[in-house]
Amino acid sequence: MTALPPAFPVAVATPEVLDRCRALVRPALEEAVGRLHPWVGEMAAYAFGWCEVGGALTAAPGGKGVRQALAVLGAEAAGAPGRAGVCAAVAVELVHTFSLLHDDIMDGDATRRRRPTVWKAYGTGPAVLAGDALFALAVETLAAAPGGAGGLRVLSAALADLVRGQADDLLFSSRPWTGPERVRPEEYGAMAEHKTGALLGCAAALGALLGGAPPVTAEALDRAGRHLGIAFQVVDDVLGLWGDPAVTGKPVHADLRERKKTFPVLAALDASGPAARRLGVLLESDGDAAEAAGLIEAAGGRASALAEARRHVAAAQAALAGVPLEATAAAELRALPDFLLGRDL
Amino acid sequence: MTALPPAFPVAVATPEVLDRCRALVRPALEEAVGRLHPWVGEMAAYAFGWCEVGGALTAAPGGKGVRQALAVLGAEAAGAPGRAGVCAAVAVELVHTFSLLHDDIMDGDATRRRRPTVWKAYGTGPAVLAGDALFALAVETLAAAPGGAGGLRVLSAALADLVRGQADDLLFSSRPWTGPERVRPEEYGAMAEHKTGALLGCAAALGALLGGAPPVTAEALDRAGRHLGIAFQVVDDVLGLWGDPAVTGKPVHADLRERKKTFPVLAALDASGPAARRLGVLLESDGDAAEAAGLIEAAGGRASALAEARRHVAAAQAALAGVPLEATAAAELRALPDFLLGRDL
Repeated sequence: MTALPPAFPVAVATPEVLDRCRALVRPALEEAVGRLHPWVGEMAAYAFGWCEVGGALTAAPGGKGVRQALAVLGAEAAGAPGRAGVCAAVAVELVHTFSLLHDDIMDGDATRRRRPTVWKAYGTGPAVLAGDALFALAVETLAAAPGGAGGLRVLSAALADLVRGQADDLLFSSRPWTGPERVRPEEYGAMAEHKTGALLGCAAALGALLGGAPPVTAEALDRAGRHLGIAFQVVDDVLGLWGDPAVTGKPVHADLRERKKTFPVLAALDASGPAARRLGVLLESDGDAAEAAGLIEAAGGRASALAEARRHVAAAQAALAGVPLEATAAAELRALPDFLLGRDL
Repeated sequence: MTALPPAFPVAVATPEVLDRCRALVRPALEEAVGRLHPWVGEMAAYAFGWCEVGGALTAAPGGKGVRQALAVLGAEAAGAPGRAGVCAAVAVELVHTFSLLHDDIMDGDATRRRRPTVWKAYGTGPAVLAGDALFALAVETLAAAPGGAGGLRVLSAALADLVRGQADDLLFSSRPWTGPERVRPEEYGAMAEHKTGALLGCAAALGALLGGAPPVTAEALDRAGRHLGIAFQVVDDVLGLWGDPAVTGKPVHADLRERKKTFPVLAALDASGPAARRLGVLLESDGDAAEAAGLIEAAGGRASALAEARRHVAAAQAALAGVPLEATAAAELRALPDFLLGRDL
């Protein structure tokens, strides 16, 4: 394993980096969405938080824009101007939004970022279609980009991983909490890498490729993004159990009540000792969520999760340190995990 | 417009041509589907008619395999061996099956080829996921093919058309039968070209490109496939109204009872005269389907539809005649419309 990178000397203001990347990408993203069938385009604009149902302009909160930032920084890390990564950024944002639309249908989630999900607002059939349209538009965007051919191999591999991760996530819900058929923490890791990490890695790698980086650099960025994705999912699970509902936007213990196989639970169940055993019995009998959260902590589930997240952040930093990258972009990339996951991880 | 081609002297046995192409493509298609997540792969195999729910092998009737045949014949028409078109054939069959899966969800169709549709058999969420997986696999297959980069531009354009056609088809259902907001036959033509023609054209063009054809040949094959697709949709509409339910597998007048905007109805409503006016009144008041079918015929809807189909078949033949193609493959391509649409069109 490559040594950890030295502490970076540049002070990076990540929110400003994300804003800069978003501003760079937005016109191209709007142009792409504008090429869709008008009805489908409205659903896409609604999903991006650009309009309300009916098309009236708005500025609902969108995502943080991590994927588009990774694509732009990937290009800059390869020594190219950020605009070289814009096609990649557009493609990964389209794919990300496609996957949110379809996942919300599969998971039956009625709200996202405090608004009705697309299937709730427009119906299931139209939401399926809007997702398909975003998917097709992503492929079209990258196919038209100079140097997009190699990029499409990277994107399609990430797409395959995305579907694989979602399939595993859906199947996890029907598996038992205990016994030989239970979900192991390692299986969770593979699911999170596929479902979340693959597209983050793809974003950075695609940006780097379009910026002229050699394959070895793109692969390192891909690896860094995959580790970041796993860390992000694990921390998200921790926040879902012990975070402030006012900050997370999710009711406390919602994941437990929905019987989601999150990392802290799986790690706690995988531990030996009385708390782990009592937790297993409690979950199998559909017991109290608050008591379960206490047992997860007592069995070491929270500590294991935070250690797992730290391990993946370190692996991401190591991947970045293992290849030559342009200094400013590299510092901005290295600062992303702290910003996304919290400095006191 | 190019002159019609001379009657072809070669006797072509189209069912054997389709069988040969299917046999050539099947191993690669199975190999691709075998790379999917096992659960998702089972849904895909079910959709192809290869297995039952649970995975037991079967041989349920699949489609005719027109798209894969067009891809193989496209390669052969370019002077290459048919195997040069296999990647294209796999990609278009995957895209076709993806679109059937998702369209069945959007249209609420419970059966296809006399079996429960995938969403009926496995649930809506899993069927959305299986469609996404087939879509991703199509892109992956073509991205990995030598010369696949140009092919991906062609495929992604067809995908965009596919979504656009499905969007228009869904929106047609909420538009009135009469008045300025009614659906015109020309709008139907654009919808059918996008929804059905684009992928047929893409199949032949992709096969030709992978077979080394110059762009002008691929474009001619694309055009031929688009015309064939429109003709196919229009004839399908005619059969839905006046065909033998034992042959079509659809109850008589089902399209009318579902208030589908099919070509014969739109052409009849677009005509002037008493039958057209009475038809408009009848449809607006949700009147009897058998009476409507009679009025459609009296207003010339059936004759218009058959003339429209003939016009598009002639345009397809003209497109094929306008470029140099290898003789046997060209004869096999030229014989497809008669086989698909009936010799007595």
